[in-house]
Amino acid sequence: MNNPAVLEQLISALRCLPGVGPKSSTRMAYHLLQRDREGAQKLAASLQQALDKLAHCDYCNNFSEHSACSLCQDSQRDKSILCVVEMPTDLMMLENTRSYQGQYFVLMGKLSPMDGIGPKDIHLDTLLKRAQDPAIHEVIVATNFTSEGEATAHYIGQMLKSRGIQVSRIARGLPMGGEIEYVDSGTLSTALLERKAVT
Amino acid sequence: MNNPAVLEQLISALRCLPGVGPKSSTRMAYHLLQRDREGAQKLAASLQQALDKLAHCDYCNNFSEHSACSLCQDSQRDKSILCVVEMPTDLMMLENTRSYQGQYFVLMGKLSPMDGIGPKDIHLDTLLKRAQDPAIHEVIVATNFTSEGEATAHYIGQMLKSRGIQVSRIARGLPMGGEIEYVDSGTLSTALLERKAVT
Ligand SMILES: [Zn+2]
Ligand SMILES: [Zn+2]
Repeated sequence: MNNPAVLEQLISALRCLPGVGPKSSTRMAYHLLQRDREGAQKLAASLQQALDKLAHCDYCNNFSEHSACSLCQDSQRDKSILCVVEMPTDLMMLENTRSYQGQYFVLMGKLSPMDGIGPKDIHLDTLLKRAQDPAIHEVIVATNFTSEGEATAHYIGQMLKSRGIQVSRIARGLPMGGEIEYVDSGTLSTALLERKAVT
Repeated sequence: MNNPAVLEQLISALRCLPGVGPKSSTRMAYHLLQRDREGAQKLAASLQQALDKLAHCDYCNNFSEHSACSLCQDSQRDKSILCVVEMPTDLMMLENTRSYQGQYFVLMGKLSPMDGIGPKDIHLDTLLKRAQDPAIHEVIVATNFTSEGEATAHYIGQMLKSRGIQVSRIARGLPMGGEIEYVDSGTLSTALLERKAVT
C-alpha cells in the first residue's frame, strides 16, 4: 500500500456513508482531493456544524437546532391533531400537499426486528407521552404502506388505543408497497382526507 | 422546506461526492446524524486532515504528505526507468505485481477533450521535466487501454520521442477496453515485461 496514511484514513472514513464500498470510497477521495477541494472543505465544515448544532425537537422529534423546532413553535397550527411519520422527508412531503395544518411526530425509522430496530429505537415512549398531551384529540399514523411501515402502524395503533387515544391511519390511496416519499401530492392529499379510524 | 438550515447545508454539501444526487445525499445525511454520528465525526476530521496535509510529490505527482513521497525517496529503487500511470490506484496495482522496481509518474487523470481535460490538467509539463532528468533512460507509458488512455499514451509518446527520450508502452496483454485497476497480477506482470518501444 503506497497511499499516505491521511489518505487511507479518508478512504476508510468515507465508508461510513450508506452504499459506499471500498472502490467507490477510493474514487470519492481522489475526486475530492483532485477535482473538488472546495467541495470537500464545505463538506467537512457542514458535517462538523451539523454534528455540533443539530439535535431533536422535544415535541416532534425531527432534527432541529433548537429544543422546539419552528413548526412546533408555530402558533397558527392546529394543536389538536398529531401526525406520525417515519422520516423528515415524509413530513416535508405532507407539508407540500398543504392539506394538513396539525402537529407531527417523526419516528426517525420504523420497527424492523430483522435489523434489531425495536419500539425504543423509534422513540415510541416519547410518542406516547406526546400523544397523551390533553390538547391532542387525534393521532394520524402516516407510516409507509410497506410491510415494516404497516407493522409499525399496527403497533402504534394498539399502543395508543389501549390508552384511550383516538388513532387513525391514512387511507390506502397509495399503491401497495408504495412509499410516501415517491407519491404525488394529489394521491397523498386524498389519503389524508380519507383516513379511517383504527378499529 | 422544513429542514433546519445546517441540515440543508449538509445535504447540499454531500452532493460534491461523485454519483451522489439529491435523494441519496438526503439519505446519507439522515443516516449519519441518526445512526452513525461517530462515523460522521471521523469523516469530518479525516476530510479536514487530508485537505490540510496532502499535497503532491514533487517527483511522481502522487498524493503525499511530504514534498518527496516515500517511494521516490527509496534509494533501493531503480532511478533509470519511469512508469507513467493515470491514477494512484494503478500505481498500487503495479506495485502489487512486484515486477517493477523503477520510478513512477502519476498523471492524476487522462486526456479527455470532451470533459475539457487537456495536457496541462494531467501535468504533462511536469512529466516532461521529470523525463528529461539525465538519470532516466526509459519512460514506460502504462495508461489504460481505453480510448482515452490510448490517446493519452499516444500524446505522451510523441511528446517524449520528439525530445529524443526512449518511450515504451506496456504490452496489450490486457483485454480491449480493460482497465489496469481490474486486471489480475499475472496479466499485468506480462504486460510490463513484454512492453514495446514506441515507433
Ligand atoms: Zn418540532
Ligand atoms: Zn513521489
